[in-house]
Amino acid sequence: MTDIFVIGIGAGGADLLTVQAIDALRATDVFLIFDKGEEKAELSELRKQICARYCTEKPYRFVEISVPERDPALPYKQAVAVWHAARAARVADEIAALKARGETGAFLSWGDPSLYDSILRIIDGVRADGAVQFEHTVIPGISSIQILTARHRIALNAIGEPVLFTTGRKLAERFPEGQGNVVVFLDGGDGLASLRGRAGEIFWGAYLGTADEVTHAGPIDTVLDSILEQRQACRARKGWIMDVYLIRPPQRA
Amino acid sequence: MTDIFVIGIGAGGADLLTVQAIDALRATDVFLIFDKGEEKAELSELRKQICARYCTEKPYRFVEISVPERDPALPYKQAVAVWHAARAARVADEIAALKARGETGAFLSWGDPSLYDSILRIIDGVRADGAVQFEHTVIPGISSIQILTARHRIALNAIGEPVLFTTGRKLAERFPEGQGNVVVFLDGGDGLASLRGRAGEIFWGAYLGTADEVTHAGPIDTVLDSILEQRQACRARKGWIMDVYLIRPPQRA
Repeated sequence: MTDIFVIGIGAGGADLLTVQAIDALRATDVFLIFDKGEEKAELSELRKQICARYCTEKPYRFVEISVPERDPALPYKQAVAVWHAARAARVADEIAALKARGETGAFLSWGDPSLYDSILRIIDGVRADGAVQFEHTVIPGISSIQILTARHRIALNAIGEPVLFTTGRKLAERFPEGQGNVVVFLDGGDGLASLRGRAGEIFWGAYLGTADEVTHAGPIDTVLDSILEQRQACRARKGWIMDVYLIRPPQRA
Repeated sequence: MTDIFVIGIGAGGADLLTVQAIDALRATDVFLIFDKGEEKAELSELRKQICARYCTEKPYRFVEISVPERDPALPYKQAVAVWHAARAARVADEIAALKARGETGAFLSWGDPSLYDSILRIIDGVRADGAVQFEHTVIPGISSIQILTARHRIALNAIGEPVLFTTGRKLAERFPEGQGNVVVFLDGGDGLASLRGRAGEIFWGAYLGTADEVTHAGPIDTVLDSILEQRQACRARKGWIMDVYLIRPPQRA
């Protein structure tokens, strides 16, 4: 009944996939991959290793969907919208081709498809456009924040307290006081830098779930410089970084 | 090297486990289960089915850890603390017994161990107490909110915007304005009721990932009564309910 799967493949190693995700991989004929440029070639390779490990019973192939980069001259949200529209047009073409051949397609999403990923919005755009009719199924996956808390063996929340997920950009604008623990995604570095002088603890991790995984934790005033240095060194060495962190404010009396 | 696994088994069906979680199940000799009383007998049964499905290569057994219920006469946080101390003492005894026999133990955590679950804090308490030395490893799992977003095929966050995870209790106290989408856990019903008259959309689900799964979504003012009725009917029929929901505020112009 499903034409397209959106499969959360977890943030990292092949053993993070669920049984449900593996079943969906095995039902897929064509994996649709967005070409995000050379810096993510390593991630593309990891995806191919995951397919090679689990899809052993029938042939499958990859189709790369190339789209122009986000235009840095436009305001962020507008640039994202333009970029999504371009991808949506390419995706609609590929889905129409799949349906014409009676094949099942899949998008592989790092971590969980619902968390700071654009694929579900792209698909909604394609459906709303109406040029091709199809059904899609979403399979959840383990996100990097879950690997972070597992490695540090901590709860995401304090007892009965909230947790705010936000971006490095938002954090740098203004610290979200009184919202409990804060988890930061998509930080170019400004978010971390904005924590200087702040009380509380930080639990940080990069390349979580992969062979290059690094983690670091402690009181912000003690470990922040070390995390910033480690982050810069990692980025210089690999050419890209994916990291996430949790900030635990000081306990109220 | 690990004495104790804390295994996220996902919120519901056996196909939500990751390969990593299955490997940990198979390495376990003794599953430590908290007896939460009759209303959760069904969940206890689901745990046993998961073990029966995956642990086929060596013998294993269950040990039930009975603890007194939270004292309703105490303030919530104090009651939780007392309850945790009682559990910690029992857990320390069981871990000491496991270590004496050279066995590996595991706690199975619904959903993800880091999210509104007390097991990691109990283990921290046992380690801090120091009566027994051990190593523990945490394995992440798919949480109910991930199943909720997958079923509704929605992103957790708006583009570049934050997401607040909170409890029904906190929501009923005061709606967290301006924090982006809001995810509500542990709602006894007051949180849902407090949404009356509010603009925006709600995406609700109960018993997510199980055979009894129900979901409902729409504008709050259109579907809230229907969700409240459905919730009450489900609870009456099964004797307990586990639900979670996401509130998407109206888009700002």
